[in-house]
Amino acid sequence: METKKVAIIMGSDSDWPCVKGAAAQLKAWDIPFEVHVMSAHRTPAAAAAFAQSAADKGFGVIIAAAGMAAHLAGAIAANTVLPVIGIPCKGGAMDGLDALLATVQMPSGIPVATVALNGAKNAAVLAAQMLAIHDGRIAGLLKQARADMEKDIAAKDEKLQAELAAL
Amino acid sequence: METKKVAIIMGSDSDWPCVKGAAAQLKAWDIPFEVHVMSAHRTPAAAAAFAQSAADKGFGVIIAAAGMAAHLAGAIAANTVLPVIGIPCKGGAMDGLDALLATVQMPSGIPVATVALNGAKNAAVLAAQMLAIHDGRIAGLLKQARADMEKDIAAKDEKLQAELAAL
Amino acid sequence: METKKVAIIMGSDSDWPCVKGAAAQLKAWDIPFEVHVMSAHRTPAAAAAFAQSAADKGFGVIIAAAGMAAHLAGAIAANTVLPVIGIPCKGGAMDGLDALLATVQMPSGIPVATVALNGAKNAAVLAAQMLAIHDGRIAGLLKQARADMEKDIAAKDEKLQAELAAL
Amino acid sequence: METKKVAIIMGSDSDWPCVKGAAAQLKAWDIPFEVHVMSAHRTPAAAAAFAQSAADKGFGVIIAAAGMAAHLAGAIAANTVLPVIGIPCKGGAMDGLDALLATVQMPSGIPVATVALNGAKNAAVLAAQMLAIHDGRIAGLLKQARADMEKDIAAKDEKLQAELAAL
Amino acid sequence: METKKVAIIMGSDSDWPCVKGAAAQLKAWDIPFEVHVMSAHRTPAAAAAFAQSAADKGFGVIIAAAGMAAHLAGAIAANTVLPVIGIPCKGGAMDGLDALLATVQMPSGIPVATVALNGAKNAAVLAAQMLAIHDGRIAGLLKQARADMEKDIAAKDEKLQAELAAL
Amino acid sequence: METKKVAIIMGSDSDWPCVKGAAAQLKAWDIPFEVHVMSAHRTPAAAAAFAQSAADKGFGVIIAAAGMAAHLAGAIAANTVLPVIGIPCKGGAMDGLDALLATVQMPSGIPVATVALNGAKNAAVLAAQMLAIHDGRIAGLLKQARADMEKDIAAKDEKLQAELAAL
Amino acid sequence: METKKVAIIMGSDSDWPCVKGAAAQLKAWDIPFEVHVMSAHRTPAAAAAFAQSAADKGFGVIIAAAGMAAHLAGAIAANTVLPVIGIPCKGGAMDGLDALLATVQMPSGIPVATVALNGAKNAAVLAAQMLAIHDGRIAGLLKQARADMEKDIAAKDEKLQAELAAL
Amino acid sequence: METKKVAIIMGSDSDWPCVKGAAAQLKAWDIPFEVHVMSAHRTPAAAAAFAQSAADKGFGVIIAAAGMAAHLAGAIAANTVLPVIGIPCKGGAMDGLDALLATVQMPSGIPVATVALNGAKNAAVLAAQMLAIHDGRIAGLLKQARADMEKDIAAKDEKLQAELAAL
Repeated sequence: METKKVAIIMGSDSDWPCVKGAAAQLKAWDIPFEVHVMSAHRTPAAAAAFAQSAADKGFGVIIAAAGMAAHLAGAIAANTVLPVIGIPCKGGAMDGLDALLATVQMPSGIPVATVALNGAKNAAVLAAQMLAIHDGRIAGLLKQARADMEKDIAAKDEKLQAELAAL
Repeated sequence: METKKVAIIMGSDSDWPCVKGAAAQLKAWDIPFEVHVMSAHRTPAAAAAFAQSAADKGFGVIIAAAGMAAHLAGAIAANTVLPVIGIPCKGGAMDGLDALLATVQMPSGIPVATVALNGAKNAAVLAAQMLAIHDGRIAGLLKQARADMEKDIAAKDEKLQAELAAL
Repeated sequence: METKKVAIIMGSDSDWPCVKGAAAQLKAWDIPFEVHVMSAHRTPAAAAAFAQSAADKGFGVIIAAAGMAAHLAGAIAANTVLPVIGIPCKGGAMDGLDALLATVQMPSGIPVATVALNGAKNAAVLAAQMLAIHDGRIAGLLKQARADMEKDIAAKDEKLQAELAAL
Repeated sequence: METKKVAIIMGSDSDWPCVKGAAAQLKAWDIPFEVHVMSAHRTPAAAAAFAQSAADKGFGVIIAAAGMAAHLAGAIAANTVLPVIGIPCKGGAMDGLDALLATVQMPSGIPVATVALNGAKNAAVLAAQMLAIHDGRIAGLLKQARADMEKDIAAKDEKLQAELAAL
Repeated sequence: METKKVAIIMGSDSDWPCVKGAAAQLKAWDIPFEVHVMSAHRTPAAAAAFAQSAADKGFGVIIAAAGMAAHLAGAIAANTVLPVIGIPCKGGAMDGLDALLATVQMPSGIPVATVALNGAKNAAVLAAQMLAIHDGRIAGLLKQARADMEKDIAAKDEKLQAELAAL
Repeated sequence: METKKVAIIMGSDSDWPCVKGAAAQLKAWDIPFEVHVMSAHRTPAAAAAFAQSAADKGFGVIIAAAGMAAHLAGAIAANTVLPVIGIPCKGGAMDGLDALLATVQMPSGIPVATVALNGAKNAAVLAAQMLAIHDGRIAGLLKQARADMEKDIAAKDEKLQAELAAL
Repeated sequence: METKKVAIIMGSDSDWPCVKGAAAQLKAWDIPFEVHVMSAHRTPAAAAAFAQSAADKGFGVIIAAAGMAAHLAGAIAANTVLPVIGIPCKGGAMDGLDALLATVQMPSGIPVATVALNGAKNAAVLAAQMLAIHDGRIAGLLKQARADMEKDIAAKDEKLQAELAAL
Repeated sequence: METKKVAIIMGSDSDWPCVKGAAAQLKAWDIPFEVHVMSAHRTPAAAAAFAQSAADKGFGVIIAAAGMAAHLAGAIAANTVLPVIGIPCKGGAMDGLDALLATVQMPSGIPVATVALNGAKNAAVLAAQMLAIHDGRIAGLLKQARADMEKDIAAKDEKLQAELAAL
């Protein structure tokens, strides 16, 4: 079974800082992905067409990032039954709370799996978790990442004890 | 010059209480209008098609009402250059603030003329004001409405003085 | 390939109204699921143990619902690499915004796929979408549900036109 | 039919950064406009007088920008039946949410067409859309701007693909 | 020296529940007052005229109450140098926070002395405190009210002790 | 009749930037004032004693400034019947909204006349307005300030017209 | 060693519903306590005096509950070095968020141990935890309560499984 | 009776700036403490184990600091009956309000004693107050700190008077 691709869609090329963490994480785990610039408001037809054909093109999950009245993830979700992960980007009124609410408060029937503000890395982790339901290689990578985090924190605690003892 | 029609679009028939004030006001002023149920998320193609053909069908202004992650006005605005008025409907997280922010915080190039939460009557007044730029009959109605409001408030003040004097 | 089970975890039996919509949707689509009462704060060991063994017990996705300082989904996610969907339940300070923020704002490495406040049905739809990446039967059900929604809205619009014409 | 003028009113000359995008856009489209400094609180009589005579002086739309307890758009709208577009300016408590609420939450009968925080360009686009209801030249410019945006985003996506391929 | 009058202005007769506590308190202390219905948006000229002539008519303080985009107190303050007390009325987006911010966040030079949401009684107390700076009778009433509050609370505490002891 | 003094109280000497505008304005108008550092939490006895004796020492109004859980104005108001003006200082959670709510939401019987966040100048203007109820000199200064503001804004508008014409 | 008493202070007898859960819990655990009505604003001297003498009267912890601009806990904390637990009561602007911020955002040096909105029972539990640092009987009761909670939730889960199986 | 130790737990070594004020204060008062890095989400087992054994290891109070969906204090509190003090760290959506709500809004039975955003010093003061219930040395230090604060503020007020007099 071939690994499905992950699509990363951003509403503007200026959103790259808000999504690049997702691309980096997927690359590190060798999960195939594409990145595209498409806007719910400025290129609505292109966004709808992409979403409608995504499953047929081998995508398994779509990540969409946007700020302010962040409609992109919802507009994608309206045109596919693939799971759509929304990254609300900071900025705008209330520094991103508008984007968070516009992303997460979807109507019944059309969910968007929302992650934290600017949570690009977690969007990639979540996409990997979805694929890992039926992909042992990715499940193994996810478990390894958890073990690495544990070791990393234990090492930081040890280092801290040494520093405090040295005071 | 024939008066352009006003379209009132709601995302669900359950939004009727949030929009009916607009229909009532337009009817009172004999401004032609249509009301439709269409959803940015559940019928995205129908909403886009309606917006794309609205100008050709004789519409001059579109009013769109939605709650929560209120994308409807934005989705309509993305598919027409007609002015689009957004009514955020109360309900959802923070009792409508999510709908307000999702409606008003549009990206550069695609504005939505946002009115108050549940501001259906004002959406109709604003639509009338837009049409009245080149329609003397409607401009006259708007001026008359203002004069009526002034008289109404003066009458209420007079009544209040009488009541207070009678205490 | 056997369909993975979905776990629905709630912090208190009083959260049943906040999650029952998820159970109903999964049942309607014949997706196997279990429902459990477990608390991040009152039974932390049981919650951790459940999460740690969930993949081995045939679960593919976990849905967790909680209100106020809603830690349940995060506590589950900390103990498994299965995708975890969080339902913030209304109530508490700011009527659920506390639950929404406590659910969605997870640290890097441990995502929670957050849906709308009280978004139980959407949590089930999202779980189904995750399983459908590799399950054609569920993908078919999801597409059918979208088609049904479209028809439903078109029928409502038609009914509305008849009612408006009758005025 | 001569094109109506657009008035841009700001409460203080320090609001110029919040409104200049509107002037630039109107100039680019060759739509006649004037810019004035007038305050709802510091020059209430001048603001009222301007609004009362605006229609007679050939204005078709008024844009008003203010921050904090942003009363300017409302004070203008109270004295004319021309459509009034409000730009809430960032700054103040909650970084502009006060201005947004003070601008948009108008009482029944006196709407203000509110755009995003600091949404000067969109205020101009919305003014142009209002004028374009009966002005083919401006309608053409608006459609051209949409087409340009589409091309711009498609070009950015193409450039991104080249950059990603080059990695 | 004759006691100056207090004016109580409300934007709509439906705001009476939000202001009547002020009238009741002034009456109890025999401080002369008038109540009027006037709107910043629906009768802007009448509101301005009232404010401009208030000092000459013997008013010493003006109390203004309004909800939502609560401009009334600010519109009054813009037209007089008398101290203006603003009562934000509950209702609207965020249940009155919009009214609070629209009332209190006034620009430099034009203050509004803002009291709590629906704080009608405190508006009257504050008006009395202002007049009491040069009016010994009112100062005496204010001190008596404080002493009464202290006795009242002490009595309630005593009653509570009796009740708890009786359990 | 001698002009009453104004007291300016701040909770910490680090609040000087938040209050100095009040001192500057009072000085410019030659209204006698004192500035003191006193804390509701760190020197509660001193703050209470000051408030209790303020009227006897010739003060007519007290201005109190504090941030975060801003109790100072309320603590002063609890110990005097002089009018107390509260300046909420920015900083803390939600950038001052905490200070605003903690200052304005006083219980019945003990008002605090709240001005805008960091509204030091307006606190002084409001204090002057209170004193001006019975002080013609100060009333004259206030009227002059308004006239100056009008001229200033008119001059700025004129300058703007010249600049725009020169483009 | 005798168990220290817990004081429960409320700003008004109308706050009893907000605090009675604390009294009930302390009674259930046989921890000595007193309840008093005292106000930071209406009886500031009594509140300060109580706090100053509390340690000498055998109190070990003070619980204070208040709503809106909730200064009571802070005013108590300013006058004692005993630990003070603050219960913010719901109601007021933003339904208690004002009380929460006014209680928790204390300045450096004078903490208030804040619990959830209307968190009376938890205030009692926290008081018991403080006393239990040096009181084995209370520590035992706290452990027993945890064990009971675990059993209670396990029983509820078991009951739920039975109900679901019976469907 | 030996003084119990205070544990300071942070979710990441990057939270050191948010907690170091607690360590500094405890050191200054010679109260024994340890600092550890442990995460509710990345090392849940280690955090639970630490909390479960803390009382046996001689800890009397635990301070936990975290940002965003700040679960650390709650996760610790779920595994011990020692009093747990939560420090919400600034950053994240709404600049720390998410952390504040996630920390304070704990369910019934499991309190977290929450201090102000970034309130590290106050967390240490509160821990000291808890220990001081049965420790005269620490109670003495706390009283001394209060006296020092009073003198410090009085000195600052005196210095201010000198500076103002010199103007």
